[in-house]
Amino acid sequence: MRILIANVNTTRSMTEMIVAIAQSVAPPDTEIIGITPDLGAESVEGNFESYLAAVGVMSKITTYNQSFDAVIQAGYGEHGREGLQELLDVPVIDITEAAASTAMFLGRRYSVITTLDRTVPLIEDRLVLAGLNERCASVRASGLAVSQLEADSKVAAKAVLRQATLAIEEDRAEVIVLGCGGMAGLDRTIQDRLGVPVVDGVTSAVLIATSLVRLGLKTSKVRTYATPLTKSLSGWPLQLSPTDN
Amino acid sequence: MRILIANVNTTRSMTEMIVAIAQSVAPPDTEIIGITPDLGAESVEGNFESYLAAVGVMSKITTYNQSFDAVIQAGYGEHGREGLQELLDVPVIDITEAAASTAMFLGRRYSVITTLDRTVPLIEDRLVLAGLNERCASVRASGLAVSQLEADSKVAAKAVLRQATLAIEEDRAEVIVLGCGGMAGLDRTIQDRLGVPVVDGVTSAVLIATSLVRLGLKTSKVRTYATPLTKSLSGWPLQLSPTDN
Amino acid sequence: MRILIANVNTTRSMTEMIVAIAQSVAPPDTEIIGITPDLGAESVEGNFESYLAAVGVMSKITTYNQSFDAVIQAGYGEHGREGLQELLDVPVIDITEAAASTAMFLGRRYSVITTLDRTVPLIEDRLVLAGLNERCASVRASGLAVSQLEADSKVAAKAVLRQATLAIEEDRAEVIVLGCGGMAGLDRTIQDRLGVPVVDGVTSAVLIATSLVRLGLKTSKVRTYATPLTKSLSGWPLQLSPTDN
Amino acid sequence: MRILIANVNTTRSMTEMIVAIAQSVAPPDTEIIGITPDLGAESVEGNFESYLAAVGVMSKITTYNQSFDAVIQAGYGEHGREGLQELLDVPVIDITEAAASTAMFLGRRYSVITTLDRTVPLIEDRLVLAGLNERCASVRASGLAVSQLEADSKVAAKAVLRQATLAIEEDRAEVIVLGCGGMAGLDRTIQDRLGVPVVDGVTSAVLIATSLVRLGLKTSKVRTYATPLTKSLSGWPLQLSPTDN
Amino acid sequence: MRILIANVNTTRSMTEMIVAIAQSVAPPDTEIIGITPDLGAESVEGNFESYLAAVGVMSKITTYNQSFDAVIQAGYGEHGREGLQELLDVPVIDITEAAASTAMFLGRRYSVITTLDRTVPLIEDRLVLAGLNERCASVRASGLAVSQLEADSKVAAKAVLRQATLAIEEDRAEVIVLGCGGMAGLDRTIQDRLGVPVVDGVTSAVLIATSLVRLGLKTSKVRTYATPLTKSLSGWPLQLSPTDN
Amino acid sequence: MRILIANVNTTRSMTEMIVAIAQSVAPPDTEIIGITPDLGAESVEGNFESYLAAVGVMSKITTYNQSFDAVIQAGYGEHGREGLQELLDVPVIDITEAAASTAMFLGRRYSVITTLDRTVPLIEDRLVLAGLNERCASVRASGLAVSQLEADSKVAAKAVLRQATLAIEEDRAEVIVLGCGGMAGLDRTIQDRLGVPVVDGVTSAVLIATSLVRLGLKTSKVRTYATPLTKSLSGWPLQLSPTDN
Repeated sequence: MRILIANVNTTRSMTEMIVAIAQSVAPPDTEIIGITPDLGAESVEGNFESYLAAVGVMSKITTYNQSFDAVIQAGYGEHGREGLQELLDVPVIDITEAAASTAMFLGRRYSVITTLDRTVPLIEDRLVLAGLNERCASVRASGLAVSQLEADSKVAAKAVLRQATLAIEEDRAEVIVLGCGGMAGLDRTIQDRLGVPVVDGVTSAVLIATSLVRLGLKTSKVRTYATPLTKSLSGWPLQLSPTDN
Repeated sequence: MRILIANVNTTRSMTEMIVAIAQSVAPPDTEIIGITPDLGAESVEGNFESYLAAVGVMSKITTYNQSFDAVIQAGYGEHGREGLQELLDVPVIDITEAAASTAMFLGRRYSVITTLDRTVPLIEDRLVLAGLNERCASVRASGLAVSQLEADSKVAAKAVLRQATLAIEEDRAEVIVLGCGGMAGLDRTIQDRLGVPVVDGVTSAVLIATSLVRLGLKTSKVRTYATPLTKSLSGWPLQLSPTDN
Repeated sequence: MRILIANVNTTRSMTEMIVAIAQSVAPPDTEIIGITPDLGAESVEGNFESYLAAVGVMSKITTYNQSFDAVIQAGYGEHGREGLQELLDVPVIDITEAAASTAMFLGRRYSVITTLDRTVPLIEDRLVLAGLNERCASVRASGLAVSQLEADSKVAAKAVLRQATLAIEEDRAEVIVLGCGGMAGLDRTIQDRLGVPVVDGVTSAVLIATSLVRLGLKTSKVRTYATPLTKSLSGWPLQLSPTDN
Repeated sequence: MRILIANVNTTRSMTEMIVAIAQSVAPPDTEIIGITPDLGAESVEGNFESYLAAVGVMSKITTYNQSFDAVIQAGYGEHGREGLQELLDVPVIDITEAAASTAMFLGRRYSVITTLDRTVPLIEDRLVLAGLNERCASVRASGLAVSQLEADSKVAAKAVLRQATLAIEEDRAEVIVLGCGGMAGLDRTIQDRLGVPVVDGVTSAVLIATSLVRLGLKTSKVRTYATPLTKSLSGWPLQLSPTDN
Repeated sequence: MRILIANVNTTRSMTEMIVAIAQSVAPPDTEIIGITPDLGAESVEGNFESYLAAVGVMSKITTYNQSFDAVIQAGYGEHGREGLQELLDVPVIDITEAAASTAMFLGRRYSVITTLDRTVPLIEDRLVLAGLNERCASVRASGLAVSQLEADSKVAAKAVLRQATLAIEEDRAEVIVLGCGGMAGLDRTIQDRLGVPVVDGVTSAVLIATSLVRLGLKTSKVRTYATPLTKSLSGWPLQLSPTDN
Repeated sequence: MRILIANVNTTRSMTEMIVAIAQSVAPPDTEIIGITPDLGAESVEGNFESYLAAVGVMSKITTYNQSFDAVIQAGYGEHGREGLQELLDVPVIDITEAAASTAMFLGRRYSVITTLDRTVPLIEDRLVLAGLNERCASVRASGLAVSQLEADSKVAAKAVLRQATLAIEEDRAEVIVLGCGGMAGLDRTIQDRLGVPVVDGVTSAVLIATSLVRLGLKTSKVRTYATPLTKSLSGWPLQLSPTDN
């Protein structure tokens, strides 16, 4: 089984980290291929950047030259999943939705801890559109940008732990979702310190994707995600030089 | 990995069928153990019978004498999942919720096709309480009781197919969930005939349960599903002679 | 007119207290009969115990050997009401719903003050399923178990009063619902101290039940609460020795 | 106990009919006083007329010269209840809300059958504002004006019966609420023919009002229904010559 | 183009202020006519007064003796708009709705700052009925009555600024709506101090009304706002001597 | 005042038509500038094409070399508005939202008539995210693609009229919104034939945009639409050769 996992930013080191995490929980026969878009921002923290990511990822997936069994889009609250579903018939899993869906099996309400406050509305919107927000107790921001989260793991742990604590005590969350790839590794710390299950989007998505493939289930092409009609397209797929960062 | 899968009625042949279906999709290292309650009805089609099932299943699971890694409750729209979550810390998966959650990854809206009209409200209530009803297009009844579904597979196929067609055309469902164990085997037929993904609750639940175990995730004990306080209990666990049917 | 009022726990002294409260507001021609389940816990503070109560109460009501005109289930946020409605055609009143419904005639929003935090989700779920949660400002826990509420009335009054005050000031409640039988007697204190109407579930339920009987209204058997189909039942009705506590 | 029941139109014969219905279910010690507004329309079938009713009723109730224990406003989907609640501290019961609240104890979903289609939105709005719409399956119009309903009881019965049948079969209602005083007497017919409980607003309201009085419960004055501030009023109370029709 | 703008209270100086504000943003060819009701209160802060306003305004508009192109009702959270829509076919704009609708184009969530806490529920109800509450972060009270707001502009500015700050910081509002005519002039102050757009109801309503007239759009008479049926009316239109304050 | 109006497809003749419609209702001092994206499809009927449009439009607006006062995005149910709001501080108006917001002032419920069934979910999602769906009675598809709508105006009129009729009769819409630029000109026909107000998105948007500019209101930059952080971008703005169609 081959699964493409698409980073939403153009930072290759981030893609490699995501692939490593995904591989760590994938069944033995599963090949994880990382995809980095050529169009976009070095990190995604808002709608503008997220729209670039949507198109950048679609372009790279569309032109991927081998067969694959599922696609994971590895960004929190990002645009684009519906476009991939139209273009493909294999399952497409968004990690925000994968994490929320997983959390709902573990407790009555979950909270997402994300990066900057400005990304909270994107995640809220994504959960609303996916029909997964009813049991969302809150989406909380650590106040740290993606770059800051990676730069200082101690500061990151402290900030995330503080918001997780508030989510449990004030918002009545029973499960914590880590809403940024840069928080990988913090799950054990928080789980140990707060005694609640902590869900990571990438690992959740890998197991959902492989499960769907195993069950032989694919995206419904009946209505919303029907294949695009054949029509004249301009500038597509994108022809940009690959990023060098 | 050992997974207990509890039938909600007292019919042992049904338990065996469920185990067989579950085993067919389980990873090789997974042992599936069927559980049949002593208290309850030969089939469950209403609240009264469902409450008996809830207590019957809890009693059998509580007194199971070996370790296990997850529990699946294999009834549609049944009571009881929250009680098991209080009593255990391993994941507890309800097949109604497993199917709905799986369906939401495959299309924008799903419909459940169940047995008698009287069971529709139970399934609707369960989806509401689980926060999974937002993308539910409809819960439709085939009009056939569990016993009828099993007695004549041609009649069953026709009735289920008809409701699935209406779900797609009138309710705008893009994915069909088969809401009764007795419908197993119909998924291929419907998928081929209607061209939409068809989700089965038992197989979905097995893959979700094994995924959670693999990820090391357990039920949150922080609030709703905290272990019951120690107190005086009367008549518990149930001491009934096993059913012989 | 004869009304059965079912305690949800196995503590007979609690049943007697409930009967006394019910009798105090019942019309002169009304006989109140207390029912204590044989199966269950000495007090109910969670889903597991509540499911036992549901089955314990159904068993005792089903085997009650005289005619009656209505049933009241006297537990907050408990399972079971729908099962009784299937088994009977006389009105079945849940006190959580009776209290909420009554409170909505007195002010724009109401809050429920209950015992332990772990019971809050049960009450919230019950109000959602009954369609009575729209005007619920909050369900707040006093932090005291049923046993503690009864042991020290001064501590109980203080804890309940504090949460009622917060409900009014922070959650904008205009009516307070006392969400535990053990709080009986506190209604006058709170009403006098806080100047808002305080609704008790048992007394509300008695007047709703007698009103329905007077109007000749019974449970609809058309769909959700239709009489269970005739089928083979195991272990039913329960055959347990009565509790002695 | 004295209860004022206010007609919302200026037709005195209608007031008398309402009083008779109310008296028929009131406890023996209860005096029912009919109130007819001087300002307003001979029948109310829209917002304009309903606003006149609101002010006409408030004016008559405010100037009523004896003490009373509760007020019932006997119009379906009408404006005005909140104003009365501000002006008084005794309970104020709207018959739309009384009927909906009663119906919810008898079945999972209810439908209201009203007069003209143009009154449907008023009833829907009232149920939304009262927080009682969650279990409303539909509000259906018989297509007959108030005057037509009264003129020909056979035509009325047929039209109402037809909509009640559709409510049960298509909207999945389990209880029918008769949404117009002019339908009084049809409840038995429908109950016998369709086998579902039929709820009348006036009788429901009388029993709720007397119950609240018996429990010593009054309108909360804490926030929404606080007594109006003392300020300069023009043209109030209304000084109009009484209607002569 | 002639637009009638109706004050909801009987204070003529307030009407003049509203007209001045409206005129300041109206296109050159637009004549703004102020309407002051004869029936009602000197200021409106509750349901009782608001119902008087509804009828007082309808009476004055109905008897206005020249043609006009649109009506604005200049009160926050007031009753009456639907009645005017039935009586007229020109557009009728409620300033609460105009402000909310405008705010939603400028940010993801808005908050309304109003006068006394007792008026908050009226505004909330109005937004719910208009279907404009989904993006309402909060309705907050400054704690000052209309008369106090006008009496001391410094105190008013401070109180409103404080609540606007809390709306942004705690409720996550991105736009502030000033929910009282008496706050006119505060918009610049708040916009400058808090850096968020501040929307005024009267100016928003004027531009919406003139836009609708320009587009040739009128109130739909198809159902809810159909012209009232011809029937016998008592006391209508009101015959009261004009207020002299 | 200069307003940019962005077509979402790459068909220049469509841009010209949109500009003409916009100009026809714009105030005299308003300059309307049409924008055609270089990236994208000749018509937009799905998520994939809509994401291309979002990025194509942002790229062209970002690189527009003169000042402007507002932006209108002229596509139904399209992605991208939030991205433009981050990049700009002038008002950004989506025509779907403009039309819905306008329709809500004219009747209690509105329906949108769009092109192909596959675009219905996009419009529904957009209305949900904008908080404007509460009063949406339905989104109905005419079944005609954009190209078909333009090719045969008689067929188009018939198909749209049929769905508008169903929207009024079955879905209880009181206002019709034409959900495709290609339907321009049909508004008079439908308004005359069905007697309900018909709202066009482009003209509504022009008047909302000019109103906001006149009121000095701009996009809130406080949270969701804050200016993107400065970071490394790849491939941005797009460097594609302009389309030649």
